Amino acid sequence: MEYAAIYHQPFSAYAYSYDEDTLHIKIRTKKADADQVRLIWGDPYEYVTEKWMSKEQQMKKIASTELHDYWFAEVKPPYRRLQYAFVLRGTDEKEIFYGSSGVYPYHQKTLANINFYFKFPFVHEVDTFKAPEWVKSTVWYQIFPERFANGRDDLSPEGVLPWGSKDPDINDFFGGDLQGIIDKIDYLEDLGVNGIYLNPVFSAPTNHKYDTLDYYSIDPHFGDEETFRTLVKQFHKRGMKIMLDAVFNHIGNASPEWQDVVKNGESSRFKDWFHIHSFPVKENNYDTFAFTPEMPKLNTANPEVQSYLLDIALYWIREFDIDGWRLDVANEVDHAFWKKFHQVVLAEKPDLYILGEIWHQSDPWLKGDEFHAVMNYPFTEPMLEYFADQVIPASQMVHRLNGHLLSGMEQVNEAMFNLLDSHDTKRLLTRCQHNKKKAQSLLAFMFAHKGSPCIYYGTEIGLSGENDPLCRKCMEWDEVKQDQEMLSFMKRLIALRKQENEVFTHGALVWNQIDDQADFISFSRVTDKKRLIYFFNQGKEVRYINLEDLEIGENEHVDNLWTNQSDMITVHPEEFVILAVTDAP
Amino acid sequence: MEYAAIYHQPFSAYAYSYDEDTLHIKIRTKKADADQVRLIWGDPYEYVTEKWMSKEQQMKKIASTELHDYWFAEVKPPYRRLQYAFVLRGTDEKEIFYGSSGVYPYHQKTLANINFYFKFPFVHEVDTFKAPEWVKSTVWYQIFPERFANGRDDLSPEGVLPWGSKDPDINDFFGGDLQGIIDKIDYLEDLGVNGIYLNPVFSAPTNHKYDTLDYYSIDPHFGDEETFRTLVKQFHKRGMKIMLDAVFNHIGNASPEWQDVVKNGESSRFKDWFHIHSFPVKENNYDTFAFTPEMPKLNTANPEVQSYLLDIALYWIREFDIDGWRLDVANEVDHAFWKKFHQVVLAEKPDLYILGEIWHQSDPWLKGDEFHAVMNYPFTEPMLEYFADQVIPASQMVHRLNGHLLSGMEQVNEAMFNLLDSHDTKRLLTRCQHNKKKAQSLLAFMFAHKGSPCIYYGTEIGLSGENDPLCRKCMEWDEVKQDQEMLSFMKRLIALRKQENEVFTHGALVWNQIDDQADFISFSRVTDKKRLIYFFNQGKEVRYINLEDLEIGENEHVDNLWTNQSDMITVHPEEFVILAVTDAP
Repeated sequence: MEYAAIYHQPFSAYAYSYDEDTLHIKIRTKKADADQVRLIWGDPYEYVTEKWMSKEQQMKKIASTELHDYWFAEVKPPYRRLQYAFVLRGTDEKEIFYGSSGVYPYHQKTLANINFYFKFPFVHEVDTFKAPEWVKSTVWYQIFPERFANGRDDLSPEGVLPWGSKDPDINDFFGGDLQGIIDKIDYLEDLGVNGIYLNPVFSAPTNHKYDTLDYYSIDPHFGDEETFRTLVKQFHKRGMKIMLDAVFNHIGNASPEWQDVVKNGESSRFKDWFHIHSFPVKENNYDTFAFTPEMPKLNTANPEVQSYLLDIALYWIREFDIDGWRLDVANEVDHAFWKKFHQVVLAEKPDLYILGEIWHQSDPWLKGDEFHAVMNYPFTEPMLEYFADQVIPASQMVHRLNGHLLSGMEQVNEAMFNLLDSHDTKRLLTRCQHNKKKAQSLLAFMFAHKGSPCIYYGTEIGLSGENDPLCRKCMEWDEVKQDQEMLSFMKRLIALRKQENEVFTHGALVWNQIDDQADFISFSRVTDKKRLIYFFNQGKEVRYINLEDLEIGENEHVDNLWTNQSDMITVHPEEFVILAVTDAP
Repeated sequence: MEYAAIYHQPFSAYAYSYDEDTLHIKIRTKKADADQVRLIWGDPYEYVTEKWMSKEQQMKKIASTELHDYWFAEVKPPYRRLQYAFVLRGTDEKEIFYGSSGVYPYHQKTLANINFYFKFPFVHEVDTFKAPEWVKSTVWYQIFPERFANGRDDLSPEGVLPWGSKDPDINDFFGGDLQGIIDKIDYLEDLGVNGIYLNPVFSAPTNHKYDTLDYYSIDPHFGDEETFRTLVKQFHKRGMKIMLDAVFNHIGNASPEWQDVVKNGESSRFKDWFHIHSFPVKENNYDTFAFTPEMPKLNTANPEVQSYLLDIALYWIREFDIDGWRLDVANEVDHAFWKKFHQVVLAEKPDLYILGEIWHQSDPWLKGDEFHAVMNYPFTEPMLEYFADQVIPASQMVHRLNGHLLSGMEQVNEAMFNLLDSHDTKRLLTRCQHNKKKAQSLLAFMFAHKGSPCIYYGTEIGLSGENDPLCRKCMEWDEVKQDQEMLSFMKRLIALRKQENEVFTHGALVWNQIDDQADFISFSRVTDKKRLIYFFNQGKEVRYINLEDLEIGENEHVDNLWTNQSDMITVHPEEFVILAVTDAP
């Protein structure tokens, strides 16, 4: 066995409490290197009572990547304290002991050394990651307010362009506003989404409003506080949640705080609100978002700035009853601030969803005391590279998805914010070179996995667009110009997601077939009660699914949830099929 | 190269901020697998300015274990934002790219993919681990108050035994007290220690006082609050720090809070202060420390309990000016509580030292927002197994020490609480089978490493003892019975530690020679200005150190810090030598 490749880390996604009395334990081995892994465990104090390390249980190989196998076990230690180690059996049948001091021969002398065991000292509910329950049954819809619908012509800024009259340039305004969103509530309810994520709505000069001028007012071109209050109330009545975008990493340079610094320099009472290297401020002598002088970075280690931002966060919850905060450029703000944010906003509204914008691995923000989720781009990317770009084989996509899923705690994956595109990327259809079937396969694939999926406005009617600003086109409201087939598809997909939510949230993921040659993938989502089996054919040949190959039990019943076939089911190139296996009625 | 064994984890001891503008980056490879590793890095937004990933720097192989090599680089990113990946060159001269998505061929297309890089989004001072400076130049002395010195016969409990009249049984009292400690202040100052760690001193029935009765009073057999105030003042005058033991995981069953629960059951106002499974309380229906019914576990998730304990922590700082809290059974208390503890006590006294009792890997408690250090038993154990028990070869000790040191951030290692024994273990001399030379080698070895060393009372005069209760013998004050040679040795060692503190704290650790055959070890601690070279001979043959082998520079000067030899230096079996290499005067 390749000992150097064995990996386990206590107090990480490899050993964590799933709930107040359950621990999840994982270990990683070199691929195809171990043929069995056992977890040996006991209470750290049981040596006193002579029940020393009496328990041994098989671990299950739950996933593989290009280089590794992952093994999993669930444990409920009776006193909520755990001491544990691993016994790994190589393909050569040789067994070794792996513990906190590394690899040792598997014999009594090793087993008796208390220093060789990993510890999970105590399971604390308060230290256990917990996301709001409602998120797990939410299908999100992201709205870029300036481009979704214009409900109040009178609010539109000077020089506004006719709705959809051209592809947007970086500084164009088309007049979208909050009343427009309220007006489309029936459309959204009919579509089936039940969570709305709004890009920033606070006063700011630009069309995207990431350069906040005033965090306490709705941008006058979008409406006012009363309109926003109405919006939240109306959506809540329909069972839909509202999430706002908090831009706390930086502020707009038009804000009174920054303008005060520009005017008064070192004597400004706001001089410590920022990271300024010298006075007077000029380009390049203060920290900004990226290299954007219009967005001076806020000093979130300053208690005044903390109070200022936390008050804002509380204001929109308390006064308007919003359900979530999406945190812009969340990874560049300090952890200490986000921990305070978590405490304060959840004290105000315990089931508020906290979503960080982080594009990379986000483990330290997802320990349970900062965010509930991040925008799950590391999950997005392999899917797009396989289905849309066709630059990686199916197996590589699966390996990267597995690696990413396994790097997270189960309950983190369950509440993840999954997406295929956003205001910051190419639109899905464009990334798929306008191949709608590929886009649909991607949507079906994403909807099949743990985490709450998000649709970027317009995806459902075939909106396309290159990177910003072209991914921010006006929504198409002319039904003739909308892709009605795509709309029906999305409604079906959303309905299925909501109907089978239990399986999508808690079902194990089992890969049945990954065929790089034929470009064919099959996987299942499995609970005790139900199996959903997916087949994706990205190859050139029609594939036939023989039900007899699926190991359907005698008392089980198969439903084709997607196409109108029952016995010999075909999966056409670029298409997919979903079967449900349940106990026969 | 063995790709499955490559390991790097962002936001861990493999990538962290050392100070407000310095990042440390580490990567682990299979041993002897890579012959060069380079770090490629840039600002995450530099692709905008076309300076995309322009920097490349060599990483240094800083340590090896049985299975792995560790590579290190220090980076100061100009905008405090870092994007990075690794180029690894195998012994076959083939180069690969390793980043957040794993291993790829090293070529332009890989380098251009922004998704393949690890990120350190922003260096925040507030998120950077920082321990009190004074700890790094502290030599600790642990006192078990009931057994150190009896200064007030009148306070001794009924049935007290004559001082040192017998080996202690579990429930014996010998009358040690705080006045006794004050009386020995000259002795301690003369010894050279400058930090005193006191086992619990609050009112409690047992001799060890881990079953607290009243956290607000000094145990009457130890003295009173005024005596303690005098003690702190006296020690502070001599430049010595005082650390107390906080037993917050559990309380004593004689405490009024637990007694109220016993008496009033479910109607007790303290019923939620504990983890009680049913009423009335009886053995086995409530959580305890280990399986000790006398120590009911406190519910530190209860805000009332939190206030209660935090007020205690503040009281002894505010009223008596203590310098550190050692936290008993710290790993079984929730992180949420310790984070509050950290905030509250450091707001009261910013340079207070927070030391957790944790025996295993302690990474999650040492992120910068909980503890400054733990009792470093994982560092202790390999040293004892090599020098004292002789059950592992030198190389295995070195590999385990390296693995442990490399699993921590540099600044954590600098402030670590290192020890060879304590009130919870066999005494050092006993573990060394009364071989004093071995004990001395161990002390010299521990004193040579990063972290503040602690001596358990009596080690310096040759006290021995098996596990508790025998490791808690009365201190020997009869100079005739004290091992005076040991005492001189300790004074010299402590003096050297304080004199060369800069090298011990910040010097790099370089292993020069690890010879399992001859049982001989040499290593250096190295700064720009000085090298301290250690030689430990645990073999049976005399070894000769030829200065010509040491690569002494022309302008350098060698001092023998330990023995009276200058040219051909001998290291006798079981002995050691320390040389200092500095620029010639």
